[in-house]
Amino acid sequence: MKVGIINVTGYAGVELARLLRHHPEAELVSITGRSEAGKKLGEVFPHLAEIDLTIQAELDRSTDIVFSALPQVASAQAVVPLVREGVKVVDISADFRLKDGQVYERWYKAVHPAPDLLEEAVYGLTELNRGEVALATLVANPGCYPTGALLALAPLVKQGLVEHDIVIDSKSGVSGGGRSLTMENHYSEVNENVRAYGLEGHRHLPEITQELERMTGQADFRITFVPHLIPMTRGIFTACYAWPKAGSLPAGKKGQEELLSLYRDFYKGEPFVKVASAPAQTKQTWGNNDCIVYPSVDKYNGRLVLTSCIDNLVKGAAGQAIQNMNLMFGLPEKAGLDYPAIFP
Amino acid sequence: MKVGIINVTGYAGVELARLLRHHPEAELVSITGRSEAGKKLGEVFPHLAEIDLTIQAELDRSTDIVFSALPQVASAQAVVPLVREGVKVVDISADFRLKDGQVYERWYKAVHPAPDLLEEAVYGLTELNRGEVALATLVANPGCYPTGALLALAPLVKQGLVEHDIVIDSKSGVSGGGRSLTMENHYSEVNENVRAYGLEGHRHLPEITQELERMTGQADFRITFVPHLIPMTRGIFTACYAWPKAGSLPAGKKGQEELLSLYRDFYKGEPFVKVASAPAQTKQTWGNNDCIVYPSVDKYNGRLVLTSCIDNLVKGAAGQAIQNMNLMFGLPEKAGLDYPAIFP
Amino acid sequence: MKVGIINVTGYAGVELARLLRHHPEAELVSITGRSEAGKKLGEVFPHLAEIDLTIQAELDRSTDIVFSALPQVASAQAVVPLVREGVKVVDISADFRLKDGQVYERWYKAVHPAPDLLEEAVYGLTELNRGEVALATLVANPGCYPTGALLALAPLVKQGLVEHDIVIDSKSGVSGGGRSLTMENHYSEVNENVRAYGLEGHRHLPEITQELERMTGQADFRITFVPHLIPMTRGIFTACYAWPKAGSLPAGKKGQEELLSLYRDFYKGEPFVKVASAPAQTKQTWGNNDCIVYPSVDKYNGRLVLTSCIDNLVKGAAGQAIQNMNLMFGLPEKAGLDYPAIFP
Amino acid sequence: MKVGIINVTGYAGVELARLLRHHPEAELVSITGRSEAGKKLGEVFPHLAEIDLTIQAELDRSTDIVFSALPQVASAQAVVPLVREGVKVVDISADFRLKDGQVYERWYKAVHPAPDLLEEAVYGLTELNRGEVALATLVANPGCYPTGALLALAPLVKQGLVEHDIVIDSKSGVSGGGRSLTMENHYSEVNENVRAYGLEGHRHLPEITQELERMTGQADFRITFVPHLIPMTRGIFTACYAWPKAGSLPAGKKGQEELLSLYRDFYKGEPFVKVASAPAQTKQTWGNNDCIVYPSVDKYNGRLVLTSCIDNLVKGAAGQAIQNMNLMFGLPEKAGLDYPAIFP
Repeated sequence: MKVGIINVTGYAGVELARLLRHHPEAELVSITGRSEAGKKLGEVFPHLAEIDLTIQAELDRSTDIVFSALPQVASAQAVVPLVREGVKVVDISADFRLKDGQVYERWYKAVHPAPDLLEEAVYGLTELNRGEVALATLVANPGCYPTGALLALAPLVKQGLVEHDIVIDSKSGVSGGGRSLTMENHYSEVNENVRAYGLEGHRHLPEITQELERMTGQADFRITFVPHLIPMTRGIFTACYAWPKAGSLPAGKKGQEELLSLYRDFYKGEPFVKVASAPAQTKQTWGNNDCIVYPSVDKYNGRLVLTSCIDNLVKGAAGQAIQNMNLMFGLPEKAGLDYPAIFP
Repeated sequence: MKVGIINVTGYAGVELARLLRHHPEAELVSITGRSEAGKKLGEVFPHLAEIDLTIQAELDRSTDIVFSALPQVASAQAVVPLVREGVKVVDISADFRLKDGQVYERWYKAVHPAPDLLEEAVYGLTELNRGEVALATLVANPGCYPTGALLALAPLVKQGLVEHDIVIDSKSGVSGGGRSLTMENHYSEVNENVRAYGLEGHRHLPEITQELERMTGQADFRITFVPHLIPMTRGIFTACYAWPKAGSLPAGKKGQEELLSLYRDFYKGEPFVKVASAPAQTKQTWGNNDCIVYPSVDKYNGRLVLTSCIDNLVKGAAGQAIQNMNLMFGLPEKAGLDYPAIFP
Repeated sequence: MKVGIINVTGYAGVELARLLRHHPEAELVSITGRSEAGKKLGEVFPHLAEIDLTIQAELDRSTDIVFSALPQVASAQAVVPLVREGVKVVDISADFRLKDGQVYERWYKAVHPAPDLLEEAVYGLTELNRGEVALATLVANPGCYPTGALLALAPLVKQGLVEHDIVIDSKSGVSGGGRSLTMENHYSEVNENVRAYGLEGHRHLPEITQELERMTGQADFRITFVPHLIPMTRGIFTACYAWPKAGSLPAGKKGQEELLSLYRDFYKGEPFVKVASAPAQTKQTWGNNDCIVYPSVDKYNGRLVLTSCIDNLVKGAAGQAIQNMNLMFGLPEKAGLDYPAIFP
Repeated sequence: MKVGIINVTGYAGVELARLLRHHPEAELVSITGRSEAGKKLGEVFPHLAEIDLTIQAELDRSTDIVFSALPQVASAQAVVPLVREGVKVVDISADFRLKDGQVYERWYKAVHPAPDLLEEAVYGLTELNRGEVALATLVANPGCYPTGALLALAPLVKQGLVEHDIVIDSKSGVSGGGRSLTMENHYSEVNENVRAYGLEGHRHLPEITQELERMTGQADFRITFVPHLIPMTRGIFTACYAWPKAGSLPAGKKGQEELLSLYRDFYKGEPFVKVASAPAQTKQTWGNNDCIVYPSVDKYNGRLVLTSCIDNLVKGAAGQAIQNMNLMFGLPEKAGLDYPAIFP
């Protein structure tokens, strides 16, 4: 099918172009990017010179599916007309992730331009919403942090085995902040440095909470989410801390074994979610679409430490978007995504 | 006074030598390091060529104070005779941190060579034990992680304002693992990578728990401590998550203000612990002896997020050791340590 | 065809396994690695868990082609029996690169175990020896530095347009030094650091000189080669400095244009050597088999500055090895290698 | 004496403030920085909170010496009135380095605002111009690249022992590019990357050439200077390649020994230029004012490889500026600068 990318010049956009290049069914036919309009893709990104396309100001309309890698608000404005015309859309921005327009307004400081589409949009955390994604016209691709956190938590939360008082501590590479220039991505300021940010509330918090509530039908979650910026380009490591519900896991070694086995059952057959047998590292997902989950029990007190690793630009953005596209078109879920991580 | 360093060739040892070079009262007179014995210090560490000393196999005994930067067990063996002779010692290893020989044996897999000294030794987290350090012959210099965690927690724990159910999530640079060669510090394996380790129990856990118990006289702490290795050389960022005791903090903005004010009071006049007004970064302590603490409240649910930044080789090792030495000899606490961090 | 890898546990070996996973014609059937023999590949390298093979002590002999990623000397010992049996071999070590056994002995401090094979072996810098590689049983895969340097120099050297007095200044990531532990790849020693090494003579020098002599039939080259180690995992940037022969290039802008055009002609149709129109960066080859060449003229004095970028583990090792294999089996040269670099 | 810094908010400015904090004679009394005017220094740079100064729009005039860390052109505009009033000035910008206003105009695309001061200004490469600096009112602090290159070359060039055909290949950390935001210092674009830049002519080239000409009184230099950007914050490694004049050095080992001895004699007694006995690394100068020089001979052909290491923000900017100030005020040259590098 014919594919378009709106805003190919950001990191999610350029990663989409890279991944689509070898997709067996998708043909990239139109790319936009206002600041670089008129240039060949290879002029801006020499590593993609073999994709013979010119960046345009506006999308060519003859596409079967469009990925939008625009920032929020601008993204909704761009894709709403397409959705209304029936073009399939995967929106990588945050614009259709939150179901409640008022929550959206509070966190994004903007009135939502198409609140009627919020309910129709499918939250594209593929593993948890596979059926709905397959039928969707508009998929809201999840945020990078929510992807890692929700996949680490889902097996226990969905089965009601964990208390709803959860700390989520994430460590992210710098590319998650995008390609726009800020003091927060100046090399000399980021290198040899680590810091927490979003302590007053990060926009991925309502997204995480919403999805946990939807998994359970309960609204009693007390989530504290603290992202950290660390000196690397790609990768997110998330550690979630929570207590198991009383009686849900045996003590000691046996608890650890049951926990692993529970996760393995939950993610059985999943093409991209791997349950590790030993603590995982983000480098094991560098450049590919895997999410590696490793759940563990603190043997001294029984607290759960649920960890996950992803590449924020692949499973956390462009890769998952293509995984969703595959589903939407009835293709094998791994089409175009079946590559190992690059190590070292 | 005359100073000796046992095992100058590790990172704590070489940092001690650097910092002592400009100490107004300390004169480094003897350095050891078995593998490099016989070489000039400047042959092994060219940046220290102006310290005109030869690395010896055994310490010259005519010193007023000795720093041991040996690994555990070897360190106790080396310093016990010195202590028994009345030489003042700051032991940077873990050998005299734990008060209970059985706990030591369980975590370090070795019978303690001088259990009688465990009670005598003073735990050298300077800010919390200033009086005892001043009178000590043997100071057990704290671990790098416990330094960051305990300073972040102490104001609330000591005043009984926080529940004893605490998650400590730390992110450390690679130098904390020492200079010995392991796959965990191979550049190509660490770069562009982040991982949790010690999930089965890190040796700094009993140290943290012991000190929290000593602060409160209570043994009901449920601490989960998860260290992470991130791609940088120096620095530890620690985030501690805990609930305030009911009624101990007002809700909303006022809670945040009271929290900051409580920390400022607690650390008032401290030369090295700074309470920040905004989220801090490890780079703000790069190369110096500061611990920057920033406490905050999750405004959505009231949970406490207590963070700290240190340079693991300075406040987390060599710097705090010198701070302790200063106290032991009645010198100004900042002597030799009064330098700003290096930025960027 | 059936493929074996000797010493899969080094960086070249593991990169071969990654790249072969999606080769349309090659089937990896046997892998060795003494220290990890008996383990599944995925236990040692989790990102390759989908390759269902056990690491063995000895190679299974039913292979059509074998890659050896052993260190020199050991590699010759392992592959000579295979070559004598007629098995095709691409040797990634240095053992068959030098044509003169005495030169080999001088640089590698070992008597060559099979000097009779030195002349038979084909130096596998694919672009320059395509015909011979296609007919070879034993290919000596070039060193990473020679690959970058020779491709930057070949268009001018082969056409006799440049003086034979050449400075080659290369900057390499750390993975080029392999996976063995040394103080030179300890993260804390390499990070925030750059140094020259091999100032007394690097082993890739005789390899570069030999090939330049073979290109020209002349033995009057005066090559100074200085490699530098810089804090990154993958990539080599090489700058070669030389004077054009009198009259070979016009002055000023025109010289620059003719130079580019000369390079474009020389590498016309090459699948992996790209002549850039603007200065290139190693990141544009990260993870793929390209060599990007950018030749320029110092407009103030006419000196040539000939630069190239490669990924040392791909075009500088495993990728070029597969490119050679493709030729040896009459496959399209890009088979299994047709992927863009990963950016950022 | 009383010191002012114009534009304290760039990297050279903030490094000046750090280094001056412990200068035994200098008192920082006035700092400017237009974009942050009105803020306390510690608000912008928390690590300098102990310097109790407010950033102002304009300099307080009651200073004995002023450092300007403004960009070129703006710097000349700011310091010319001060110089005319007799205030001593060390200008860290390029505005007074070139002696010829027309050369300045060609390279900096601006008419020089005070060409009459060009001859009066002293080029502040301290080791080479000590006498003039001591008497100067206006010192033009050298560029970071020229500092490393000229100190590596001076012993041979001044003594007429080297041919004037020289390649200078430098590798720099990112902080040399300043604190302004550009795509060239975006973390994700710089990390895992190396590139040459300024291939069309870098502004430090005329500065290097001018000083080599002044050392010799000859105008026949053919210098090719290629700077490279590598993924680290601080440090410049420079390799200079040149032929010795016929007969100036014996062949083989003896040549290497004579070369080292010649450099040792030349820099004998220098407080900051160290001649190493083994290849040096930039990390050995991290954070301090040293320039480590290591000259070597290519034993295969006799070519000279002259290398140097500096911290671009210290000896390459703020440190050398203070070294010059010390001379201008008759203070010991090491005053405020006598600190070892920080390792690791």
